[in-house]
Parts: sequence; C-alpha cells; structure tokens
Amino acid sequence: MRPARSYGGIAADERMRGRREQLIEAAIEVMARDGAGALTVRRVATEAGLSTRFVYESFADLDDLTGAAFDMTSRELATAVNTAVRGAPTGRRARITAVVEAITDFFLTRPAKGKFLSTRAYGHPGSARTRLARSEDYVAAFAALLADLVDGLGAEDRAVALTSRFLVSAFGETMTALAYGETPYTRDEFVHDNVELFLGALDGLDRIADQSSSSDSS
Amino acid sequence: MRPARSYGGIAADERMRGRREQLIEAAIEVMARDGAGALTVRRVATEAGLSTRFVYESFADLDDLTGAAFDMTSRELATAVNTAVRGAPTGRRARITAVVEAITDFFLTRPAKGKFLSTRAYGHPGSARTRLARSEDYVAAFAALLADLVDGLGAEDRAVALTSRFLVSAFGETMTALAYGETPYTRDEFVHDNVELFLGALDGLDRIADQSSSSDSS
Repeated sequence: MRPARSYGGIAADERMRGRREQLIEAAIEVMARDGAGALTVRRVATEAGLSTRFVYESFADLDDLTGAAFDMTSRELATAVNTAVRGAPTGRRARITAVVEAITDFFLTRPAKGKFLSTRAYGHPGSARTRLARSEDYVAAFAALLADLVDGLGAEDRAVALTSRFLVSAFGETMTALAYGETPYTRDEFVHDNVELFLGALDGLDRIADQSSSSDSS
Repeated sequence: MRPARSYGGIAADERMRGRREQLIEAAIEVMARDGAGALTVRRVATEAGLSTRFVYESFADLDDLTGAAFDMTSRELATAVNTAVRGAPTGRRARITAVVEAITDFFLTRPAKGKFLSTRAYGHPGSARTRLARSEDYVAAFAALLADLVDGLGAEDRAVALTSRFLVSAFGETMTALAYGETPYTRDEFVHDNVELFLGALDGLDRIADQSSSSDSS
C-alpha cells in the first residue's frame, strides 16, 4: 500500500502540532507565573524554547493563543472528569464524589492550568470569550449527569439546568480559592465538605421535583 | 450660628457629587446597552448630558469611573439586602428567602446595574479588580448571616466560609442567567427554586458541623 501522503508531510504536521501544544503549555506557564498582562509573543516563544516565528505559524495573535489554551485545558479537565465518572460506582454520593475528586486533583496536580481555568484569570479577551462558551458546556454536561441522579427530571428541565449552573459556579469558586491557597483545607477535607454541599443542593432539587410533580397532578 | 464654610462652597460640592453620580449612572447605561468596549469619555458625557470636562473633574480615567461605578452599585445592592434581612422574620427559610428576593428584585428592577454587577461583565480592568474585592466582601457578609443560621459554627469557621463562597458564586450565576433572560423562570419561581438549593446546601453545612463536632469530642 502506498501512503496517502508522504511520511515527510505527516511528520511535518505532527511536528507543528507538537509545537502548538508546547506553545500553549508555555503560555499557561507564563500567565500563571507572571499574570496575563505579562504575556507576549516573545515570552511565550522563550518559555517554549522556540523561535517567535513558530508562534505565528500556529496562532493569529495572542487572543487566538489564549483562546486555544483555554479550549485545550477545558478538554483535558472534561476528559479527567468523564473518566472518573465512568469508573465510579452508581449512586449519588459516589458519582458526585468522583466529579469533585477529579476536578480537585486536576487543579492540585496542574496548578498553572488550574489557575488559568479559574474565574480569577480575567486576563486576555480571547480566553474571556472562550471561558463563557466553555462554562455553558460545563453547565450542559453536568446537567446530564444530574438528570441521572434525580428521579423524574430530564437534563432539559429548567430546575436541573438551574441546579447545574448553581453548582458549576459554586464549585468553580471554592476550587479557585483552594488553587490559590486561600482556604485552610487539605485535599480530602475539601472534597468531603464540597460533596456535602453538592448533596444538600441535590436534596433541594428533589424537593423542587416533588413539588412540581405534585402540582402537575393536582 | 455661622456656617463652617460658605453655602456657595457646599452647593458646589453637592453639585459635583450629583454630577459624579449622574456620570456613573450614564456609564452603567452605556455599558448595559452597548458593551464595555463602547465606553468612552465622550459617550459617558453625552449620555449624562454633561460636558466631557466634568468626567475629568470626578474621575482620573475610565478605569477609575468603572471601578467607582462597581463600588456604588455594590453598596446599593448591599443596602437592599441588609434592609430586607433586618425586616425578615427569624428562621432559616425566612432569612434566606429575604436575601434571595432582595437580590432578585434589585436585578430585575435595575437591569442595567444588574448586568453590570454580573460576572458576565468582564469589560473594564477597573471594574474587574473592584469586582474581585467586592466579591470577597459579599462572601464575608453572607458568612456572618450563615453563622446565625447554623448551630455551633462561627462566621470564621472554614466550612461557613466555604459555604458562603459556594452560595454567593452559585446564586451570582443563576441571577446572571435570569438577568440576561436566559432561563425560563418567573420571578417567584426563580426565588422559590433558588431558596430550595440554598436550604439544601445549608443542610449539608449542618452535616459538616455535626461531623466536625462529633470528631472533636471523640
């Protein structure tokens, strides 16, 4: 069989993809260390150990780079959460604990990425826009998980969507405080207390569901 | 009695204070209507019906103006919430309902200010910085209220602080969705469902408090 295109071409594509990821990782490091205001093409290139021309090879400008960085980091987080949920036993506490642990561990083991994902990073317009779009994705994904845990409500139900938005934002903020070392919690205690707050809110969602089904049938 | 300073001087101060407020209200209107990127000294002045020199009389620059706007709006919201809580009956549901209603009504009756307060308004660096500082104030103020509603934990307790941060952020986001017309709720239904989520999370905080007091005494 003849390859569809030359091995040399494939290798060049792969090298470019590798450089693109290297530059994204470098940009996240620069922002975590020195703030979004410190991000320049030169500093990203220096951090990655590449020439500045490779920044322009992969990105139109810094907004494009930070937007791509936010997308890549969000996808990594989503993969970590999905893997944890798929591996978790069924049942409300086990599923919620799996989500909370996966996010906590992502933030604690990848501090630069965690800080970049956090709402604290207002920094670059590119990532601010991407952040809004991704946070709607999180709300939709978590609503699907919630609908599995609450009887009688689908992911499209407004109360499920409300609860998902409520909890995604709530945990985003407590996670940010932990990532910035602002809250006196160990990892395990942090997971435990957040899980109790999640489960409490889910009991609230149960009551909403009960009330709306009893008013439907009355 | 002789006045401490001339009536003319007092009147001039008052006129300047009045213009300052007029300019802040105008800036909030411009941002709500056209986005933070549309804010210029000229547009603020035009909206307020004042000459641009009055912008410079009260503010160093647009960051200073948007920071002051955020502070003023936050104080108005805090006053509305405090008034509602002071007038509410004791008891968990009544107090939480008073807070949720006061904030909801503030956002619904002052849409431009509500949108400006919302986390969606990444806009100007001046208000982004002020936003972070004020949101820490909200977390501290709500922690004081929570401590009154939960036995055995003070406002300084880390679980109370965590729950306050969790709920302030959670409700900030559902409120934003309502303010932007993105969620199919009437005012009363929105208040009701959010109150259930708050009360559920408070039950979670009760469990945390029980567990920590039983582990203290073991």
